[in-house]
Amino acid sequence: MSPQIKLAVIPGDGIGPEVVAEAVKVLGAATASEDVSFDLTWFSLGATRFLETGDVLTDEDLGSIAGHDAILLGAVGGTPGDPRLKDANIERGLLLKLRFSLDHYVNLRPSVLFPGVQSPLAAPGNVDFVVVREGTEGPYVGNGGAIRQGTAHEVANEVSVNTAFGVERVVRHAFAVAQARPGKHLTLVHKTNVLVFAGSLWQRVVASVAAEFPEVAVDYLHVDAATIFLVTNPSRFDVIVTDNLFGDILTDLAAAISGGIGLAASGNINPEGRFPSMFEPVHGSAPDIAGKQLADPTAAILSVALLLDHLGLADASTRVSAAVTADIAARDRTPRSTSEVGDAIVTRLTD
Amino acid sequence: MSPQIKLAVIPGDGIGPEVVAEAVKVLGAATASEDVSFDLTWFSLGATRFLETGDVLTDEDLGSIAGHDAILLGAVGGTPGDPRLKDANIERGLLLKLRFSLDHYVNLRPSVLFPGVQSPLAAPGNVDFVVVREGTEGPYVGNGGAIRQGTAHEVANEVSVNTAFGVERVVRHAFAVAQARPGKHLTLVHKTNVLVFAGSLWQRVVASVAAEFPEVAVDYLHVDAATIFLVTNPSRFDVIVTDNLFGDILTDLAAAISGGIGLAASGNINPEGRFPSMFEPVHGSAPDIAGKQLADPTAAILSVALLLDHLGLADASTRVSAAVTADIAARDRTPRSTSEVGDAIVTRLTD
Ligand SMILES: CC(C)[C@H](C(=O)O)[C@@H](O)C(=O)O
Ligand SMILES: CC(C)[C@H](C(=O)O)[C@@H](O)C(=O)O
Repeated sequence: MSPQIKLAVIPGDGIGPEVVAEAVKVLGAATASEDVSFDLTWFSLGATRFLETGDVLTDEDLGSIAGHDAILLGAVGGTPGDPRLKDANIERGLLLKLRFSLDHYVNLRPSVLFPGVQSPLAAPGNVDFVVVREGTEGPYVGNGGAIRQGTAHEVANEVSVNTAFGVERVVRHAFAVAQARPGKHLTLVHKTNVLVFAGSLWQRVVASVAAEFPEVAVDYLHVDAATIFLVTNPSRFDVIVTDNLFGDILTDLAAAISGGIGLAASGNINPEGRFPSMFEPVHGSAPDIAGKQLADPTAAILSVALLLDHLGLADASTRVSAAVTADIAARDRTPRSTSEVGDAIVTRLTD
Repeated sequence: MSPQIKLAVIPGDGIGPEVVAEAVKVLGAATASEDVSFDLTWFSLGATRFLETGDVLTDEDLGSIAGHDAILLGAVGGTPGDPRLKDANIERGLLLKLRFSLDHYVNLRPSVLFPGVQSPLAAPGNVDFVVVREGTEGPYVGNGGAIRQGTAHEVANEVSVNTAFGVERVVRHAFAVAQARPGKHLTLVHKTNVLVFAGSLWQRVVASVAAEFPEVAVDYLHVDAATIFLVTNPSRFDVIVTDNLFGDILTDLAAAISGGIGLAASGNINPEGRFPSMFEPVHGSAPDIAGKQLADPTAAILSVALLLDHLGLADASTRVSAAVTADIAARDRTPRSTSEVGDAIVTRLTD
């Protein structure tokens, strides 16, 4: 009997279900010839579920998801401004809760400008880098609070928490990623001149882990300068390691310069495998175009490639990437529906 | 006797003295016909001073600077990695200390793509917006700390402090800036879905101040999404209001898409005039090209335009902007020295 992989699927809201449907098709086609089978459990989570039941993510949901080998997520989030969602915060209560509970300390976000894709940059050059974003610390920890809320004397604080333990494990992972790439170049991005305590920790950890990776060249950029280089000379980057918030900002910008978030995939990874890792497109739920077969499922499909790679199915992962690359290169201006894109990629995988 | 304006001049380090020299020339030329005179006091501050005396900014310096009507600053900061500067942090001890001590709560950073300037964007469109960055709160307050530093159990925190008082005054200023512009459009940039307490304060303040400015259209973007729009559709922006850290990041990106930080001017403003406001190019001290007459003084000269406007010398300010615009439009590929650029702009002002 071939090994079975238990996959939790969270289609989510908006365009999530549409892009996940294509990603699942591609997953099947890419692994048909492998000695492995996927057992899918579908979870109804997100704004839709919240509106029906009042639940964002119950302990039972979380326990059940944690029992899987990996997670594929579409997108979550309702229509912005929907008064019924005012107090829900689906992002914190669902997406971030999953990342934190499942200890997804590596948020892996590759940026590649595929041949044939139009960048908003006039001369992008060769864009091919990976951002290793920390996923469980920084200003994302939810360690904020306010006093005298709603008065003229309100004070609202947000605490960025950074630990040697948390920084070191993600930095070591980033060095390993850099070591495995031809460029062997790691850039730490932070704001050490202002956030002196957190910045000092990140810098010392990078300096000390660097000793274990003598082949990897290391440099440092302030986050503001990094945004400049991302638009003036993105090919200078190979691997970026940075904190949760800077990583959030840089990866949206990185996606934009490499053709848009319609193509940006990501993995929320627990490298030791104590918890299932989660793969998701960087884009959101885009409620305005939901249900119309207008969404590009490519980011979700590239997230499947990251998922396969994570599961050790490197050949299948490479086949998905190659099929996507070929599909993108063959694109003309004819609009295709979400499922037409998925079908075209499946055809390339099965032909 | 014509009114006298006491101007504190801080040339600083690296290319600072070179660009300030041109800015001062232009200031003289632009105001020669005005019924006003400038009394300049030069302050030697920055890495050079620190290396000579061990002082970054003494109470005496600060007291003396505070007695002026305005400040013109070049750039501060020594050579990165200089071991003698390891514990100095000139940025925090000098630049940020001035901004905080002199209550520069409005950090005003216009982004204009001048005719003739090459943007790294293939189709930038009409780039003409202003970022109103909060200057005295947020993660810049220096409210960080660490325990068990240097051990495997280190925890390093940074606190972003946001007050109703501090947010409201900068938001009101931003609305006034938007009201005075033809676009009358204000975009709040934050990360309300993650930084829920600070985000909620910013959102409530914007909603309440909006009632006083019924003509100004308001929208909201998460900071990550804002970076996408800055490279895909910068002309959607008119006025952005945001916190200290997001403003730092967005304005470097904004400078990059509008032709580089060689052209980006800024004002650190205390609108009530209780303290002198400070005008400075966004760029740093660029020690690598210092003393070679290679730096473009345009950002420093445009900072003079902001200074003149702040002092109520609107005509002189407009003349400087017009001379710079004409100079930029007339540029060819012939390299010019720092002083040649300054001289060319002076010639346009005096002809
Ligand atoms: C939805 C939001 C909480 C999330 C984040 O900030 O991490 C998103 O922007 C992302 O990058 O995955
Ligand atoms: C030098 C640094 C402290 C400063 C900042 O972060 O504000 C600079 O980047 C700026 O934007 O003026």
